[in-house]
Amino acid sequence: MTTSPSGFRASAVHSGLKANGKDDMALVTSQTPCHAAGVFTTNRVKAAPVLYDQEILSRPNHAIRGVIINAGNANACTGAQGLTDARQMARETAALIGCAPDEILVMSTGVIGVAMPMDKISKGIEAMAKNLRPDGWDAASQAIMTTDTKPKLASASVEAGYSLIGMAKGAGMIAPNMATMLSVVVTDADISNEVLAGALPKVANQSFNRVVIDGDMSTNDTLLILANGASGVKVGANDAAFLEALKSVCVDLAQKIARDGEGVTKFVTLHVTGAATYEAARTVAHAIATSPLCKTAFYGGDPNWGRVVAAAGRSGIDVAPEKMALWLLDAASEPAMQLFANGTGCDYDEPAAITLMKTPEWGLRLDLGQGGEADTVWTCDLSHDYVSINGHYRT
Amino acid sequence: MTTSPSGFRASAVHSGLKANGKDDMALVTSQTPCHAAGVFTTNRVKAAPVLYDQEILSRPNHAIRGVIINAGNANACTGAQGLTDARQMARETAALIGCAPDEILVMSTGVIGVAMPMDKISKGIEAMAKNLRPDGWDAASQAIMTTDTKPKLASASVEAGYSLIGMAKGAGMIAPNMATMLSVVVTDADISNEVLAGALPKVANQSFNRVVIDGDMSTNDTLLILANGASGVKVGANDAAFLEALKSVCVDLAQKIARDGEGVTKFVTLHVTGAATYEAARTVAHAIATSPLCKTAFYGGDPNWGRVVAAAGRSGIDVAPEKMALWLLDAASEPAMQLFANGTGCDYDEPAAITLMKTPEWGLRLDLGQGGEADTVWTCDLSHDYVSINGHYRT
Repeated sequence: MTTSPSGFRASAVHSGLKANGKDDMALVTSQTPCHAAGVFTTNRVKAAPVLYDQEILSRPNHAIRGVIINAGNANACTGAQGLTDARQMARETAALIGCAPDEILVMSTGVIGVAMPMDKISKGIEAMAKNLRPDGWDAASQAIMTTDTKPKLASASVEAGYSLIGMAKGAGMIAPNMATMLSVVVTDADISNEVLAGALPKVANQSFNRVVIDGDMSTNDTLLILANGASGVKVGANDAAFLEALKSVCVDLAQKIARDGEGVTKFVTLHVTGAATYEAARTVAHAIATSPLCKTAFYGGDPNWGRVVAAAGRSGIDVAPEKMALWLLDAASEPAMQLFANGTGCDYDEPAAITLMKTPEWGLRLDLGQGGEADTVWTCDLSHDYVSINGHYRT
Repeated sequence: MTTSPSGFRASAVHSGLKANGKDDMALVTSQTPCHAAGVFTTNRVKAAPVLYDQEILSRPNHAIRGVIINAGNANACTGAQGLTDARQMARETAALIGCAPDEILVMSTGVIGVAMPMDKISKGIEAMAKNLRPDGWDAASQAIMTTDTKPKLASASVEAGYSLIGMAKGAGMIAPNMATMLSVVVTDADISNEVLAGALPKVANQSFNRVVIDGDMSTNDTLLILANGASGVKVGANDAAFLEALKSVCVDLAQKIARDGEGVTKFVTLHVTGAATYEAARTVAHAIATSPLCKTAFYGGDPNWGRVVAAAGRSGIDVAPEKMALWLLDAASEPAMQLFANGTGCDYDEPAAITLMKTPEWGLRLDLGQGGEADTVWTCDLSHDYVSINGHYRT
């Protein structure tokens, strides 16, 4: 970690939510009130902390002092008690760090439909509040992991004199819309609520929403940004340096999520080009990225281009096979060989294609030959381990 | 097989398309011209035989004498040569059984993008034409299998004095729209082209289109019906006995496809009830049936109702968790226990739920609490074997 924005602290604790004894709660605080914005799951079934955070952030002039996070229990499908518990988490945190309850946001991830063990949670909050440290991010990013195999941290500094740091957890249930499971980004720049609310969805579309693991979408997906202004550097709307830095942090975290998808053995970048509209490019890319037949072929290192072309064909976009062209790309997204053109397969070097596709990182470019629009998606394969992890998640 | 419509014959042969030495071609013929209709894949990437059959069946007063079928090569993404090859298959068959080329329909299934080995195909057609038998259906239904583990045959007789028999192949790439891979149904009733064309899509929606294996859709999906009138019994539009018999054959074949999905260990019937519209019920049912997280939980026998509720929540339908109710159903589709109500999990007997879900056949009913519409889907789990079969299909 090279940068850490001024005035933020973080901590983590094992409260007993994870059976394996690892840290399962994290707390992020700012010494002064922050402007803040959030992007949330579009799932109609929203977890209690999502409903709670959305309510807080919808208030004009909201000011945020911290985010309390737990892994191991999603507090989703927990009825009225769930909302009561989310509020209690905020209230207890606020009391310990000395702010109003509505200055605390809440994030939860884990199993759905189980009541929060509030006794453990309360003890965890108490322990964390005593242990907040400017360099607590490593521990915090590990505590929010569920089936992630690696913690996900990213940071950036901007010449004007401020910096950003973000952490995320991902792994399963990562989908077209709002691909984070949970992510918090903080900065010591001075940015208004309105500017943050304008920038965050735009950057989310270029980063987290480009990740497709399995096409499912969580009840809990949340991306938050907090800006405490401690650097004294003001950032206005459409500030290119800030947008670039925020994007770099979010893209870094998003790619880490795709690389660490459940059971992933291949990180695959899908470029769909030559589309009539951006929406068409996006739709085709997602059809390929969620196709079990494509994803199992990725796993097997099988250049089965017919499945890719067929997935595009059933995407709902009016593609024409004779106009399509497909390339296998190397890890740097450069064309390695062309697989498909003029409605049929090319005479490519199949052993070389298999060799490349057996490596952990490569891509595909599908040109639809219908226009000038394009989109990119980061996805992964569907492996035996994905089935193992998800077939027996709770048992 | 209890019934076999008069005047139809079938045969099968090993032509060399399957490496394992098993039969890989089938021929179905009628001694007199048939009325016929077809339902085809809606994939924009259509295999050559689909394009060929659609053209033949779009002609007014088409008359069909037979269907030539091969497994092992889909003749898809094969460019202009593919269409030439499909036409040649029809021409050679027609010459041998003594009819016009446009009286023969063609079906292919297997690997995409490889030119048809026409020398093997031609020898196969010649051998089959010499071996046509009224009781050739068992052999034919086995010859069209690809990753199917069992042949799929179904039949029905109608009191008025005619009968139907159908065969199908399914297994992978079975999707919301037109879930057959290949199916041919024949009857000795006397039914016009128009009546057949009216009845077939309706029955397909109540049978094959209710099957969801993996949400992918083939370039080759085709359902054909041939009626030769040999029984002398006339069937008009909206004939209840005929529709009932055709539906029973198609439902039987469709359920056999779902039970024999690639790597299937569980046959799961999903009833979505209480929907505001039929379309909403269908959309929610398909969201659950294509969710990798739901399907891996089915595999593990895990009553993880949160995934089912979350899949409904991201389906695009405006569901409300507090209105939803979910039941686990036994093999007879009777409620075994309620899992979810009032926005949260019920206090159900989890060991009993797991015991039921470890059996090979059970179901779920999700009531949306929003209206009186319903739909049913037959689906299956996502297992380690699905990944094994599809990760290395070609290698």
